[in-house]
Amino acid sequence: MDRELAKSLIDASSGRAKCDLLMKNAKVVDVFNREVFEASVAIKDGYIAGFGDRESESVVDCLGKYLIPGLIDAHCHIESSHLSPSEYSNAVVPEGTTTVIADPHEICNVTGTDGLEYMMASSKNAPLSVFYMFPSCVPATPFEHAGAVLEAEDIKKYIALDEIKGLGEMMNYPGVANRDEKVIDKLDQAWREKKVIDGHVPSIVGKDLDSYLVTGIKTDHECETPDELREKTRRGMYVMLRQGTACRNVEQLVKGVDEKNASRILFCTDDRQPQSITREGAVNYGVTLAIRSGLDPATAISMATLNAAECYSLSDRGAIAPGRRADFFLSSSIEDGVSADEVYILGKLVAKNHKIAERAKSIEPKNVSGRMDVKNLDLDRLALKLRSNRARVIEIIPGGVVTGKGEATVKLEDGKWVHNPDEDVLKLAVVERHHGTGNVALSLIRGYGMKEGAVATSIAHDSHNIIAIGNNDDDMLLAIKKLIEIGGGITMFKNGEEIGTHRLEIAGLMTDESLEEVTRCLDELHDKADKVMGINRDVDPFMTLCFMALPVIPSYKLTDCGLFDVTSFSFVDNEL
Amino acid sequence: MDRELAKSLIDASSGRAKCDLLMKNAKVVDVFNREVFEASVAIKDGYIAGFGDRESESVVDCLGKYLIPGLIDAHCHIESSHLSPSEYSNAVVPEGTTTVIADPHEICNVTGTDGLEYMMASSKNAPLSVFYMFPSCVPATPFEHAGAVLEAEDIKKYIALDEIKGLGEMMNYPGVANRDEKVIDKLDQAWREKKVIDGHVPSIVGKDLDSYLVTGIKTDHECETPDELREKTRRGMYVMLRQGTACRNVEQLVKGVDEKNASRILFCTDDRQPQSITREGAVNYGVTLAIRSGLDPATAISMATLNAAECYSLSDRGAIAPGRRADFFLSSSIEDGVSADEVYILGKLVAKNHKIAERAKSIEPKNVSGRMDVKNLDLDRLALKLRSNRARVIEIIPGGVVTGKGEATVKLEDGKWVHNPDEDVLKLAVVERHHGTGNVALSLIRGYGMKEGAVATSIAHDSHNIIAIGNNDDDMLLAIKKLIEIGGGITMFKNGEEIGTHRLEIAGLMTDESLEEVTRCLDELHDKADKVMGINRDVDPFMTLCFMALPVIPSYKLTDCGLFDVTSFSFVDNEL
Repeated sequence: MDRELAKSLIDASSGRAKCDLLMKNAKVVDVFNREVFEASVAIKDGYIAGFGDRESESVVDCLGKYLIPGLIDAHCHIESSHLSPSEYSNAVVPEGTTTVIADPHEICNVTGTDGLEYMMASSKNAPLSVFYMFPSCVPATPFEHAGAVLEAEDIKKYIALDEIKGLGEMMNYPGVANRDEKVIDKLDQAWREKKVIDGHVPSIVGKDLDSYLVTGIKTDHECETPDELREKTRRGMYVMLRQGTACRNVEQLVKGVDEKNASRILFCTDDRQPQSITREGAVNYGVTLAIRSGLDPATAISMATLNAAECYSLSDRGAIAPGRRADFFLSSSIEDGVSADEVYILGKLVAKNHKIAERAKSIEPKNVSGRMDVKNLDLDRLALKLRSNRARVIEIIPGGVVTGKGEATVKLEDGKWVHNPDEDVLKLAVVERHHGTGNVALSLIRGYGMKEGAVATSIAHDSHNIIAIGNNDDDMLLAIKKLIEIGGGITMFKNGEEIGTHRLEIAGLMTDESLEEVTRCLDELHDKADKVMGINRDVDPFMTLCFMALPVIPSYKLTDCGLFDVTSFSFVDNEL
Repeated sequence: MDRELAKSLIDASSGRAKCDLLMKNAKVVDVFNREVFEASVAIKDGYIAGFGDRESESVVDCLGKYLIPGLIDAHCHIESSHLSPSEYSNAVVPEGTTTVIADPHEICNVTGTDGLEYMMASSKNAPLSVFYMFPSCVPATPFEHAGAVLEAEDIKKYIALDEIKGLGEMMNYPGVANRDEKVIDKLDQAWREKKVIDGHVPSIVGKDLDSYLVTGIKTDHECETPDELREKTRRGMYVMLRQGTACRNVEQLVKGVDEKNASRILFCTDDRQPQSITREGAVNYGVTLAIRSGLDPATAISMATLNAAECYSLSDRGAIAPGRRADFFLSSSIEDGVSADEVYILGKLVAKNHKIAERAKSIEPKNVSGRMDVKNLDLDRLALKLRSNRARVIEIIPGGVVTGKGEATVKLEDGKWVHNPDEDVLKLAVVERHHGTGNVALSLIRGYGMKEGAVATSIAHDSHNIIAIGNNDDDMLLAIKKLIEIGGGITMFKNGEEIGTHRLEIAGLMTDESLEEVTRCLDELHDKADKVMGINRDVDPFMTLCFMALPVIPSYKLTDCGLFDVTSFSFVDNEL
């Protein structure tokens, strides 16, 4: 606490000085007792001076609405929104989110700590408070080329900063359980500064979980069942109820939450796509779903506010109480979820009726834009030469990011794969874009449904090389070149013609356009993906593609180094 | 976390190395879900490696008993036990306390930071973990001479230490509410290091409480009613259920605790006398009373363990969970309270059947012993000269530390007060002992019941000058001189004869004798106070005396500077 602020607050609270703002006639959600009480709330210098009427420069009549502490999203990747941090603030603040703990894992995989610097700088312009976790696993695996390699030495430079709350999700479970020295080096940086270490342990329970948790790893957002939730909370983990775009766990997990363990539960969004944010909201949506699933509203709200503040040592927020930040929103009811009519941050009205009052300004994306270091790309590099017509194919499983191990008899011309219109098998290419290695890896993929053309994107978890899918090399080459030209995004070509493009000029992942513009563009692209490209309606045309290069999720995936069998953790040939 | 420890724990947890200890067949109290589950608990290097059977050097069959995390006393003054920290450890560890947050306010009032240094050094020898709060209010008031004055500069030297968890109970409510610069200076030291500030706000609620809390003061242990508890928790305070010797709040306060707010509630002992510890226990007694009052046992235990760990950022303890300290105890049942059959600290058996296994050793009480700087004391200085026979008297109210404002018509000889056997009015003397000021203050007191003799003690809150009560100056002088000779304690004289003495050689407050010896001695003194001295049975002969010099509790009190009217906050004459 700043001493001048403290003195000013004491004066305002005790009545010796006027307050700035009085929120009258409010139903205050008390996240400590998980109940509601009627009161006025007095604000001075952006902080809460106390409860009860006091002389004030301005007065807001809350009309008996609920006054709710600003929501805290305990774990998110801003990059998944396609929005820069300043635009992300414009997007989520109107729905009641006032603080997020963000892991800039995606941009750091592209641009290293330049990405972190950019994210921190961009969020400084915004009313949303963004705290960062330093990404622990860049690159995610050694089986691909990411844009950067972040080691313990890099962590050391940043971990002590106030805006860095700790070490991001430790996805390298085997590295911890086998006490790999490089992993221990990374954890050690967080231990030295007594910072939080976020976990990432999908389906890991029992003794295997113990070996991971003895290191003090504190949170998990990969929990899927109520039993798993109790198994993890029992071992001291804060468990997050995640409502992302692909991974939607709230309604299932909330069955494991009761008044006894609620203080160990947080909410997070992890990865939410722009269209999901537009249509459903951000972390507020998870809170609403939990309430609709039967959780007591004040309890759900305490989980999304106080608990996250406690977990991440944010003692200046997370509740409406004397001395805390005046971050809160008004909601007409809480019985069926929360809906932010007005949002205040540091005692200023920042959004009303789901619209931001004053848009946060973008900054120049310094050192994180435009670089597309692709070497020697031509039609010949996209030709998939096969020694036999029996080949492995990545089998898309609709509705998820897991793939199957498929096989196909394919058509060859001059030893090269050619599309057979009678079979739903397409070519997949991953083009290294960070270091000019010239790496181009090719494989086959089934289930995408497209008959003609190519789709390409520079979002390809977690290394974010360019990934393209197509039935012919000309369209694929055009699509890839388009992305190189505009510095990244999503594009579709058919018969040599550009069908549609969504530009993501920041690291090939994000844009400084607004959520509305991004949603409109993506809606249009989705529409064309269906109507023009004929892509399988059971498959998200872009999100599916984004995950085809992620070699930590089974079964077959394609990195810039080749076709990877996740179950055997090794590269395999395209030919059977 | 230490990196070598982490690696060893991972090896043990994963089964690559043997564990040291396996607690088999236990009912583990899970303080996160507030429930009980059956499991084995594996320990390595003093920390918990995980749940479930593992190969281990030694195995303890828990025989289905409850395995409970070591209790944390969130606020205590070790000095009230009359025991040095090492002896305090010997006394409370066998009852299940494994960590205490101690405020060495009493010894620091006598010896300044030498007292803190001594306390830290003495507790290093003990298995009990003792963390300290730096006393915020030394001296407690400007109306008396304490042994030291501690300012912000002194706080600065210590506040960053790991074993100092923050700033001790801020008793100077007006100083905060009026933002006294010296008080702000003190708070600022805690703000800079992001340390806890303990509160002390008896009966302060509403807006008055707001002005105090805007400074981030975090806890309160002076709460007396369920309504006050909710008023304080609502404003973000952690509220402590205190079961001291004089102040016994658990049974009343627990009515305000439910599963919704339990995570904001702690237990503490504050001040427990040696006989109370012997007969009832330490913080375990509060937990037992809460359970007997109907609180769910696992919830009560979580309040006495996890909550205190969270409040004071002790992330290495407070639960039986992987990576945390193996501090726990076995209790045959929890339905009617807790009782420690065996106590383990860092995985070692330290107490069994309420007996310590290996006594912690005392250290030499360097710079905190023996100094009794009393000048010019003789019979004449003890003569109470009055200009009239109508005098003010301190009116003892049995069962508390508050006094009334009394009046009396007294007997004078040569203008000096003399005892009238028909009236229960005695003389009270406070003799400054720290700086050789020669201050001796005198007044009259009613309700102590003694007919003949004198009682004196060097425990006299909060400045701990010598306080003596008697009907004649000869016995009073002998008693005071006895204390000067032995370096402090409690003594009784009658007709020139020493009736009994309890030596407290450490700062005149504590001793390196054991709890058993101290209790035996005090039992004997209490017996003689009744049978030999004829002291009013409704009054604790020594504790009452200890509080007669405390000028923050109404109404009349006597400091070394004179008779003090706490309601008007000013000195008054003995004559009416």
